Amino acid sequence: MSASSKALVTGAAGFIGSNLCDYLLEKNLQVIGIDNFSTGQKEFLQKSERSSCFRLHESDLSNLDQIKGIFLDEKPDIVFHLAANADVRFGLEYPRRDLEQGTIVTHNVLEAARTAGVKKFAYSSTGSVYGEPNVFPTPEDCPFPIQTSLYAASKLAGEAMIQAYAEGFGMQGFIFRFVSILGPRYTHGHVFDFIQKLKLDPSQLEVLGDGKQKKAYLHIEDCLNAIWTVINKADQKINIYNLGPDEFSTVNDSLDTIESILGVSPIRKYSGGERGWVGDSPFIFLDCSKLKSLGWESTYSIQDGVKATAKFLLDNPQLIITGQNKDLAK
Amino acid sequence: MSASSKALVTGAAGFIGSNLCDYLLEKNLQVIGIDNFSTGQKEFLQKSERSSCFRLHESDLSNLDQIKGIFLDEKPDIVFHLAANADVRFGLEYPRRDLEQGTIVTHNVLEAARTAGVKKFAYSSTGSVYGEPNVFPTPEDCPFPIQTSLYAASKLAGEAMIQAYAEGFGMQGFIFRFVSILGPRYTHGHVFDFIQKLKLDPSQLEVLGDGKQKKAYLHIEDCLNAIWTVINKADQKINIYNLGPDEFSTVNDSLDTIESILGVSPIRKYSGGERGWVGDSPFIFLDCSKLKSLGWESTYSIQDGVKATAKFLLDNPQLIITGQNKDLAK
Repeated sequence: MSASSKALVTGAAGFIGSNLCDYLLEKNLQVIGIDNFSTGQKEFLQKSERSSCFRLHESDLSNLDQIKGIFLDEKPDIVFHLAANADVRFGLEYPRRDLEQGTIVTHNVLEAARTAGVKKFAYSSTGSVYGEPNVFPTPEDCPFPIQTSLYAASKLAGEAMIQAYAEGFGMQGFIFRFVSILGPRYTHGHVFDFIQKLKLDPSQLEVLGDGKQKKAYLHIEDCLNAIWTVINKADQKINIYNLGPDEFSTVNDSLDTIESILGVSPIRKYSGGERGWVGDSPFIFLDCSKLKSLGWESTYSIQDGVKATAKFLLDNPQLIITGQNKDLAK
Repeated sequence: MSASSKALVTGAAGFIGSNLCDYLLEKNLQVIGIDNFSTGQKEFLQKSERSSCFRLHESDLSNLDQIKGIFLDEKPDIVFHLAANADVRFGLEYPRRDLEQGTIVTHNVLEAARTAGVKKFAYSSTGSVYGEPNVFPTPEDCPFPIQTSLYAASKLAGEAMIQAYAEGFGMQGFIFRFVSILGPRYTHGHVFDFIQKLKLDPSQLEVLGDGKQKKAYLHIEDCLNAIWTVINKADQKINIYNLGPDEFSTVNDSLDTIESILGVSPIRKYSGGERGWVGDSPFIFLDCSKLKSLGWESTYSIQDGVKATAKFLLDNPQLIITGQNKDLAK
């Protein structure tokens, strides 16, 4: 992207979205943010809003006419569609949520982008679309997977529509299959849950599963550098990239780090089983050689990422103790 | 399925749906049909409606409350979800159609099935979910494909939701990736289009693409036997099966057969290019060894299927000349 290109970011007030807005502004792009603040945080956009190159639209992506209007007014060069229900768990309790906030909203954003002549469409998918793969580390072209969660099913549906739009309407698609992302403004996931629980009761801790689930986590800075690398260097019609570190780590490893930072030694009560919840993948480890071939390298180890995240949350206790965030972390 | 099991068929008045209703009734099942008759034909259900074991609900699957009521009243043992926009073309002209008639409707049917405690869910997907694969014949576990049409994107979204429901709610899923199906009650596709055009003008014929597209077609009888084999013999949580013949054939081969039956020799005017339309796959040939391992074999050659289909259409000219079907065939 050249300086003064215009980027539109959906989910702009979310964890990844707000960090991306700051990042793109530092790269001298004009940045248009959209968020409905259902889970996004106004304070995360304080830095972006100090820039004259940033503009925010408070709008709900389920309102197709409204977002078509925004896209037609703004005519961005590239869209980063990050807005979604961000929690892979609980799809079974609200089985329509991922359809509505994921699949249908993604179609709306694609339609708005098409209507406004947008040529580049970037999308935050997930390594969860690999389900429970047989190949580790898992490459982008691993055997056709089987979905295990409604969250991943919705992300896969989004990928598929973007691919069809790219084929049919001459857009260029950038699909990022993330591992879990950590770092400043992180507001949900296992580090969040553990710290929240330990703040309430440092003597004991419920751990979903057996604690041996092997997972990969990437620091938000490494994530943003990867996105920037891909949108500037990948030149296919459809560009699908895994984003993750070279290592994996267990839930117990993260817990060791968190307990050490908090200075607590709770009795760990494991709910048991290989999986933390129905649809959880007991092993996530992505092959990122395709991304590395573009020159990207990760700079944070997983446990450094966990440390940075824990410190951010301890420095921002309002994110943990508010009712809103208790709901998020349920 | 044991005799007296109850099957619910969506899209019951369609080509495959109506044939499936007849087939299941012959197997002594109770059959509940649902159709909104947007493209289904009442006459296709005449045979089923003579059976006391058949009941039809005229209902639209986009009305979730209504179909939940039907499912709760009927409490079927197995659902065959066939209803969808059936035409892989024109997704780009109506970019929301496959989302609404495919993805969202499939979610509604899954929700109705879950609410009613249905334990088996069968789904008509498509070989088009393989996009433009690199492996021929293409097996079910070929490399993670890239979608080229909104039709296939919607079918993939349906597959993914069924997989997540099977994982989360203890259903058993049967996913059939069909090639194009031919035979009695066939009302759209290349054989239909060619005959319709040749009836209007036997002196010349527009052919989409270069006529060399390699495609596979399966006769409806072979298709129904395959479905019956799988639902009775496959015992995994998720059962994904390709359905197709051992051969492929070109569009020109089909045209030779059709011209011979009609006794015409039109000048063929090719629109040119490897693909008939944007998102068309120039080569479809599925590896069905997984299905064959259950004991199934096809009995019709492709060109015998084309002949049977052409004869059916010539015997039922009302399907070709009605305004409704002209719309279907557009």
